Amino acid sequence: MVDLFGGNPDNPLASIADSDETVQLLDTTLRDGEQAPGVSLMPEEKADIARSLDRAGIGFIEAGSACTGEGERETIRRVTDLDLGATVTSFARGIRNDIDLALDCGVDGVTIVVPGSDKHIERKVGTTHDEVVETTGDLVAYAKDHDLWVEVIGEDGSRADLDFLERLMGEALDAGADRSCYADTVGHATPEKTYEYVSRLAELGPVSTHTHDDLGFGLTNAWASLHAGADLVHGTINGIGERAGNVALEEVAIALAHGYGIETMNLETVYDLSKRVSHATGVPLPPNKAVVGENAFTHESGIHTDGTLKDDAMYEPYPPETVGRERRLVLGKHAGAAGVRAALEEHDVSVSEGELKSIVERVKRLGDRDKRVTDADLLAIAEAVQGRERDRHVELLDLTAASGGGTPTASVRLRVGDEERVASGTGSGPVDAAIEAVRAAVGADANAQLDSYHVDAITGGTDAVVTVEVEMSKGDRTVSVATSDSDITLCSVEAMIEALDRLLANDRPDRDDAEPEDATLADDD
Amino acid sequence: MVDLFGGNPDNPLASIADSDETVQLLDTTLRDGEQAPGVSLMPEEKADIARSLDRAGIGFIEAGSACTGEGERETIRRVTDLDLGATVTSFARGIRNDIDLALDCGVDGVTIVVPGSDKHIERKVGTTHDEVVETTGDLVAYAKDHDLWVEVIGEDGSRADLDFLERLMGEALDAGADRSCYADTVGHATPEKTYEYVSRLAELGPVSTHTHDDLGFGLTNAWASLHAGADLVHGTINGIGERAGNVALEEVAIALAHGYGIETMNLETVYDLSKRVSHATGVPLPPNKAVVGENAFTHESGIHTDGTLKDDAMYEPYPPETVGRERRLVLGKHAGAAGVRAALEEHDVSVSEGELKSIVERVKRLGDRDKRVTDADLLAIAEAVQGRERDRHVELLDLTAASGGGTPTASVRLRVGDEERVASGTGSGPVDAAIEAVRAAVGADANAQLDSYHVDAITGGTDAVVTVEVEMSKGDRTVSVATSDSDITLCSVEAMIEALDRLLANDRPDRDDAEPEDATLADDD
Repeated sequence: MVDLFGGNPDNPLASIADSDETVQLLDTTLRDGEQAPGVSLMPEEKADIARSLDRAGIGFIEAGSACTGEGERETIRRVTDLDLGATVTSFARGIRNDIDLALDCGVDGVTIVVPGSDKHIERKVGTTHDEVVETTGDLVAYAKDHDLWVEVIGEDGSRADLDFLERLMGEALDAGADRSCYADTVGHATPEKTYEYVSRLAELGPVSTHTHDDLGFGLTNAWASLHAGADLVHGTINGIGERAGNVALEEVAIALAHGYGIETMNLETVYDLSKRVSHATGVPLPPNKAVVGENAFTHESGIHTDGTLKDDAMYEPYPPETVGRERRLVLGKHAGAAGVRAALEEHDVSVSEGELKSIVERVKRLGDRDKRVTDADLLAIAEAVQGRERDRHVELLDLTAASGGGTPTASVRLRVGDEERVASGTGSGPVDAAIEAVRAAVGADANAQLDSYHVDAITGGTDAVVTVEVEMSKGDRTVSVATSDSDITLCSVEAMIEALDRLLANDRPDRDDAEPEDATLADDD
Repeated sequence: MVDLFGGNPDNPLASIADSDETVQLLDTTLRDGEQAPGVSLMPEEKADIARSLDRAGIGFIEAGSACTGEGERETIRRVTDLDLGATVTSFARGIRNDIDLALDCGVDGVTIVVPGSDKHIERKVGTTHDEVVETTGDLVAYAKDHDLWVEVIGEDGSRADLDFLERLMGEALDAGADRSCYADTVGHATPEKTYEYVSRLAELGPVSTHTHDDLGFGLTNAWASLHAGADLVHGTINGIGERAGNVALEEVAIALAHGYGIETMNLETVYDLSKRVSHATGVPLPPNKAVVGENAFTHESGIHTDGTLKDDAMYEPYPPETVGRERRLVLGKHAGAAGVRAALEEHDVSVSEGELKSIVERVKRLGDRDKRVTDADLLAIAEAVQGRERDRHVELLDLTAASGGGTPTASVRLRVGDEERVASGTGSGPVDAAIEAVRAAVGADANAQLDSYHVDAITGGTDAVVTVEVEMSKGDRTVSVATSDSDITLCSVEAMIEALDRLLANDRPDRDDAEPEDATLADDD
């Protein structure tokens, strides 16, 4: 065994990077990922994700499990019909019929899964060790006769007897399998155990690794496997999968690229891929998810924002553009002067040092009260501190929204400039109807876009407070607003009107005349 | 350097487990966790979390950063006033005033953070290496004079010159610091680098480790640090924190307990703690989060459900009860016969083998269509397959809900048994009003509880389809229902009425007479 931490300190995985053999990825988002509770992908969604994985340069795509049913097979055929550069595979149990079903879908290869641990051999399948070995050899030979790329997984390998696993995989490779795969099916292994098992299998021939995250060791064990000689890593985009999920492939890719200079995929496509998978599976991206979470390149605290304004790399290991993203600076209870000044400048608001101090104070106080501090909040604070009267251009005077069995309908009464306007609208629900009514009342001349509309998940009772966040833009100006209320309709309308008012404020004649440097809002310093 | 993977293969961390020195945890949920964008904890929330952390037996609690402002200091005081068993600390920058402010809050200790890397020393703070070393020594001596427990962090340590870091920490320990801390502030380091740095610092004295998850290596690096001689791990509950967050403390705890037999906290309280933090911070728990995600102990696919019904441990590394949770079996496109039969039995529905086959088929087909298969779906499928007419007890005939500026109001017309009933209600929003109206119409005799009401986050447009999930119970029976529509009010009412109908069906006289074994719904086998 090698001395991992005592090797080449600059690049201990250098042997992999420098040799002809590179590390490859097998994406199983469409199979193991889809087995996540509550997840089901439609054929067109699978095809779309497969296309994106292929564009990202991922070498192997497990498109599904052909034995699951006719619906699944049609879906796999949709993927094989795309004629991708990647090797497209199907999962198959240790049954000849499963391989026939996979062949029927036109796949390039199969991952044959046979029981590895005593628990799986005896308790689950009710067979013997000898029988598993014999069947595996026969199945591999059969699949190879049909020109398939073949990988054999010993299910629950991390809890298997290592001598048996070695015997099983030896038989598979002798029968012609392209590679064996170490599977930590239940996410049970330590990195030390992973290293021990994979090392032994690597002595037999090419070996892959399939790790789960039940202990949080998904990536640790993929890393330990590579050290032990594995050169193909199974994983899923966003780490979705059974229970705590599989190792997240985007984390494998960035860790190898940033830490060891090993390229496994086109990193710039990672964020797009991640959003597609999140959208199609309905599994939201946690804000603090590595690489692809909303906050992964967001800085709020004063120290971090200040540092980032001085040097982009101050609080980032690599630039967000590497993975197709952008940096964001936001305000909250830990805000500092540098970040607040930068945010004000984005809205063309200049302030004196004294005013800045008061504004920062108030931003922090608002943040203290468990609130996100949005653009709208910041502008309101700046007005208050600078003693400027807010000249509202759009104001909600009245809202009525009705829904139920028939056509959801709403009406609003707004003040727009000096005019009072009344309009109504219908929509797919009360919120949609109310927003339509606002649009009708404000008129096309407003020419503002609703870029995003988001409602936080509601849990608790039906009287829970709902938080609505909208982002609206007009030309190159963007304003974010967050409002909270128990009434989702009222809350949505208030957020939209606040954003509209902020955007239209910049259109008024007295403002168009001002030079940007002059502080387009009043400035007394 | 030790040969990690070549050591004692059964328990390479045995030296830590067996010696007097144990691994301890420092929870920084209330400081680094709270620095996550959009997160702000109220004083009572911080006190509540601190109390829970203490009950969980966590050794060190970083309550906040005293220099942030008076609001923060009041909050820290709330925590120190609790007189916990844990050592309560504050974060302090390398400024004497920060230590004074911390002292003013009555903390037991401070973590003093000074710049470690050239980038931080020269670009961010604008000072020199010598000055950092000198100031650090003075500050440590000052803090020790005031009887504080003192830990010194070299910020951005993983990008620091290791010789300088060694000099800095040597000075800190000479001045009386209780320990140094290796900080991978930007989550940049490989485990190899972490091992190298921590090993060198461990030669000087006690060392802690503070890792971030930007590359997904948060836990890997905590593990590598322990191998290198660290014995205190910083982390946050649910892994919240700046950017991609800190290492998740619950993952550190379960990985050490399950993998190495090292106890760091009372694991049974983990789930409760995790939910508290998620609720207070508003950062949702991703379903596939290790240990605490909704799906961490949920099995859907046929193979996994079948295996789990044969042996609980078939697809789990450790029992859910270890971390205060329960196992769940759910249905979807990968459902199998064993799982479907078990689910039907929970609702006292017996079926023949032939019926079961058809029901499984339909469950899978429904799952294929991108749908969660709830209790209500399963019961409807069983009725259709068994040719039983569904005898609806409660039916929605009409709904009107109005909201806006005034009092949200709703009315419903229901058929309950043979009776038509009309009722109205008011509430905090249209959904709440409509649910009140349903409650009034059904009457108190229904005696059913709304156990949970959940709306998935809404993103996209205001016309996005909303998915509402409710769980209702009556006595010891529970029914889950999910409905989707663009109208959140209608959708919520339909889900509740469907659940009510399913629950009240079991109350009817013809069903009370039946023996459970008799198949309480029609059974033709």
